[in-house]
Amino acid sequence: MAVKSAKMTESTSLKQYLPFLAWLPKYRREDLTGDVIAGVIVAVMLVPQGMAYALLAGMPPETGLYASIVPLIIYGLLGTSRVLAVGPTAMVSLLIAAGIGSLNPASTAEYMQYALIMALQVAIIQMLMGLLHVGFLVNFLSHPVLSGFTSAAAIIIGVGQVKHVLGYDVPRFEHFYEQVGFLFTNITHTNLTTLIIGLCAIGVLLAFKYPLATWMKAHLPEFIAVPLSKLGPLVVVVAGVIVVARFGLAQAAGVGIVGDVPGGLPQVAAPPFNFAMWQAVFPTAIAISLVGYMESISVAKALASKKRQKIDPDQELIALGAANIGAAFTGAFPVTGGLSRTVVNDTAGARTGMASIFTAILVALTVMFLTPLFFYLPSAVLAAIIIVAVAKLFDWHAFIHAWRYNRADGLSLLVTFGAVLAAGIEAGILIGAAVSMGLYLYRTSKPHTAVIGRIPGTEHFRNVKRHDVETCSEVLLFRVDESLYFPNVTYLELQLLELVADNPEIEHVVLVCSAVNYIDVSALEVLERLMSELRSSGVTFYMAEVKGPVMDRLRQVGFIDHLGGDRVFLSTQRAYEYLKAATG
Amino acid sequence: MAVKSAKMTESTSLKQYLPFLAWLPKYRREDLTGDVIAGVIVAVMLVPQGMAYALLAGMPPETGLYASIVPLIIYGLLGTSRVLAVGPTAMVSLLIAAGIGSLNPASTAEYMQYALIMALQVAIIQMLMGLLHVGFLVNFLSHPVLSGFTSAAAIIIGVGQVKHVLGYDVPRFEHFYEQVGFLFTNITHTNLTTLIIGLCAIGVLLAFKYPLATWMKAHLPEFIAVPLSKLGPLVVVVAGVIVVARFGLAQAAGVGIVGDVPGGLPQVAAPPFNFAMWQAVFPTAIAISLVGYMESISVAKALASKKRQKIDPDQELIALGAANIGAAFTGAFPVTGGLSRTVVNDTAGARTGMASIFTAILVALTVMFLTPLFFYLPSAVLAAIIIVAVAKLFDWHAFIHAWRYNRADGLSLLVTFGAVLAAGIEAGILIGAAVSMGLYLYRTSKPHTAVIGRIPGTEHFRNVKRHDVETCSEVLLFRVDESLYFPNVTYLELQLLELVADNPEIEHVVLVCSAVNYIDVSALEVLERLMSELRSSGVTFYMAEVKGPVMDRLRQVGFIDHLGGDRVFLSTQRAYEYLKAATG
Repeated sequence: MAVKSAKMTESTSLKQYLPFLAWLPKYRREDLTGDVIAGVIVAVMLVPQGMAYALLAGMPPETGLYASIVPLIIYGLLGTSRVLAVGPTAMVSLLIAAGIGSLNPASTAEYMQYALIMALQVAIIQMLMGLLHVGFLVNFLSHPVLSGFTSAAAIIIGVGQVKHVLGYDVPRFEHFYEQVGFLFTNITHTNLTTLIIGLCAIGVLLAFKYPLATWMKAHLPEFIAVPLSKLGPLVVVVAGVIVVARFGLAQAAGVGIVGDVPGGLPQVAAPPFNFAMWQAVFPTAIAISLVGYMESISVAKALASKKRQKIDPDQELIALGAANIGAAFTGAFPVTGGLSRTVVNDTAGARTGMASIFTAILVALTVMFLTPLFFYLPSAVLAAIIIVAVAKLFDWHAFIHAWRYNRADGLSLLVTFGAVLAAGIEAGILIGAAVSMGLYLYRTSKPHTAVIGRIPGTEHFRNVKRHDVETCSEVLLFRVDESLYFPNVTYLELQLLELVADNPEIEHVVLVCSAVNYIDVSALEVLERLMSELRSSGVTFYMAEVKGPVMDRLRQVGFIDHLGGDRVFLSTQRAYEYLKAATG
Repeated sequence: MAVKSAKMTESTSLKQYLPFLAWLPKYRREDLTGDVIAGVIVAVMLVPQGMAYALLAGMPPETGLYASIVPLIIYGLLGTSRVLAVGPTAMVSLLIAAGIGSLNPASTAEYMQYALIMALQVAIIQMLMGLLHVGFLVNFLSHPVLSGFTSAAAIIIGVGQVKHVLGYDVPRFEHFYEQVGFLFTNITHTNLTTLIIGLCAIGVLLAFKYPLATWMKAHLPEFIAVPLSKLGPLVVVVAGVIVVARFGLAQAAGVGIVGDVPGGLPQVAAPPFNFAMWQAVFPTAIAISLVGYMESISVAKALASKKRQKIDPDQELIALGAANIGAAFTGAFPVTGGLSRTVVNDTAGARTGMASIFTAILVALTVMFLTPLFFYLPSAVLAAIIIVAVAKLFDWHAFIHAWRYNRADGLSLLVTFGAVLAAGIEAGILIGAAVSMGLYLYRTSKPHTAVIGRIPGTEHFRNVKRHDVETCSEVLLFRVDESLYFPNVTYLELQLLELVADNPEIEHVVLVCSAVNYIDVSALEVLERLMSELRSSGVTFYMAEVKGPVMDRLRQVGFIDHLGGDRVFLSTQRAYEYLKAATG
């Protein structure tokens, strides 16, 4: 079998950096149908979501539509995923709001400038990560950390929208708990009409999400049912506008509305260059670059593997970065690939990046001609859309699962969750990441070890504590189930020396290395020391089942010569037979 | 064979915390001879060293003698090592000088108060570490980091003493390179007489260290030769005093002398309690606790194993902590076990902690009656003692060794070395530790993997790239040589999916887990995802050679049920035979 190498291609051909060169020349009519239908359906989802996520980011609603035009065209041409739907997302908008909010901008204009700078920085960071092949860095955020972060973010986002549903204003607070406190103490200021509109919108959205979606899936083909079940946001937006406009609720009942949404395509302009501002948004830009990339790559990978297509993680970073350049120069804010929109795009039949381009064209038409329709759109409806969208991100099953599987993972999740709520988003992620890496290092610092013996009549060696095995009192067979490196090797040395001190009949010690993938230089020093410590107490040291690459390395630095080449056995069986005969 | 457990005893008997209860009642006359001789020889070494290390720490010389009385008695009673010689050491004195120096104390009295507070904090930290069983934390400082730190510290200490040999004063500088610069630009201020005394002292010390020691080892029994070869410091001290006093060099040639050393035993007094001062010295106290413990435990372990004795690392922390309480209450400064003194103590025949107590008595007698003799002791002689003692700590072989063995270890060493010189001692250690852990995590994030096949006619499976093996194009056998956890699992998923995308004939994928010691919850999620990604592209996922503890965990969370219990094979051989037959 000639298995092709799993290593990524080193070719730097034009097609690698401009993936559309591969699919556009071969574009067929069959592709067009799927792409057009998917493009339309995603646009219908994206218009209300875009405005809602703009408000969540603290930006004017039209910027959410701007973020859904040029970035989509750029990603459509440069992305390696055929179906990823780029645009504003809840998580990134939350990071934008938290990051810029903490800078206390003096005006909306300044706020928007920060958002543009942020988009450009995200673009630069993501493109650099792609060109330098360091996208793997996101893997250092473990699942429990991400899960704890996502659940906490869902709570922060959801609670942040409650004010729109209750209909009274809540100032910006440094701490999350202060915001919750303010919400509760001012509950009497609730605007009842707004609350009813908000709750109705939530009800309709939930109805679309669960009973209706189930019914449609049972009675309609999937490619119709899935997109139809995503029309909830459009329905509540249209209904909200009609109800508020028809009954004059904005004036009569003080229902908060979106108001004037400027029409027309966004102006193309460069983000301002101001060193202090660039410095101020940089930490948030890093967080958005990583979180946005992760959100995007995971859904892109899942859908690509379904069709045995390939995703190039480095090119994905470049494409997302380029899309963010588009956002930065067209008055928008940072974007990334959204989970649910991408699934809809895929199910509705998107075949190529053209689907994204069709979506962008429809959003552009909306901005050009339909913005007056949004005047009476109640903020409570947009808040309802956000709340329902993020509710599913709060995942307490993940905690139970992680905790049951392993205390360290459960702890990482819980610490991240608590830290994000208590210390803020970026500090929370950092704390969580540090804790998860610390716990991993701690775990490998006390590895599983076993004194082993032979299962009678076989060549298998097992733990003396778990199995009924045959041993020889002069020969200690000691197996370590971990690579040998600095945090654990002193612990192992101590264990071995204690075993030898407690069992004076031992003459030979065999370190069984079947699970040792690596020996670092600290471990090498300790092995040298252990060898001479054992020698000075009259015990000889041997090794068995040393893996090829480890053996090469040990031989190269002269350790094997020092140990004595005949003191390394290929198998535990040979070591046991030989030493038993020698002492017998 | 009834191998006694390597686990430390859980008994909290009095003998565990007061080890002298075990040996004192059984004390015999034979022990006495060895202990007295060793006690005397160590005292002869310790008097000049104690004064020299006090000056290195920035303290008056008599405090170095105080540090060699009560702490030794306490350690002698509480330590689990029979031969560890506690007292002032170069490394700890350097940390004291750097830590207190950076606080710019207004007077010598304030400087000494800081030292007392530091000793008490070290005592508290070490005792807490012992009681909480967290001594293993020091293992997170890898050999390369320690080695880089030690070499850099040796340079800083040595260069710091050069001024005493040249005979002109150098003010305290923030940065090491400024100090070097000042030394060079003021080289014309050298006091020639002082320089000659210093160089002669260095010459005599080196002569004792190398040619004389070699000669004595060849012609005298070891227990005489080793202690005799350590008399160099005593010889240069006596000679220095005689020469300077006889020729009036202090007055006539301006040779720097120790001057008046107050006689009499130290006063017992509590260190001052001042919150600001306590806070200021805390970071240094942490560094001293860890570095001091490490210095101590490594030599104690090495000597104990020679006699198949045991060291209890937690009780060692408690004993060192208690010794530092002694230091804090008797006008001294932080102490720890010294490497060369301990070796001398052991070789000279020390049998129990009584040797330490005899040393303490002799130092006490020195303080009471002999201090007037040190009036004319030239500082250049003490500096020479320090320079010769630390010169061997600079270890460039360690760098070459680490670099040759493995680039990551070499890099850790180099970064620590540079960071200690450039950014200071504590920051340097922290940077080094972070780099070494980061490099470890990076390494495990891109583990070695192999597509494997069967060596014809055997049950052995090996890498298809290295061996001529038999494979089946529908069955992919994929081996991962690392535990599966968050930094590496996405990388592995990508590799597997690319292999499957590139080789459409694959129908079965077997993940061979012979080197997988652990699967964390992030990896579990990815395995679940991988399973369904493969399923959606028509490929079935299997596992083989899953270890017992890993299997238990996977079964417990239902992963095995989900995968299908018949999809886990005990051996690669069985998986291969079965799947080959199924596709054949």
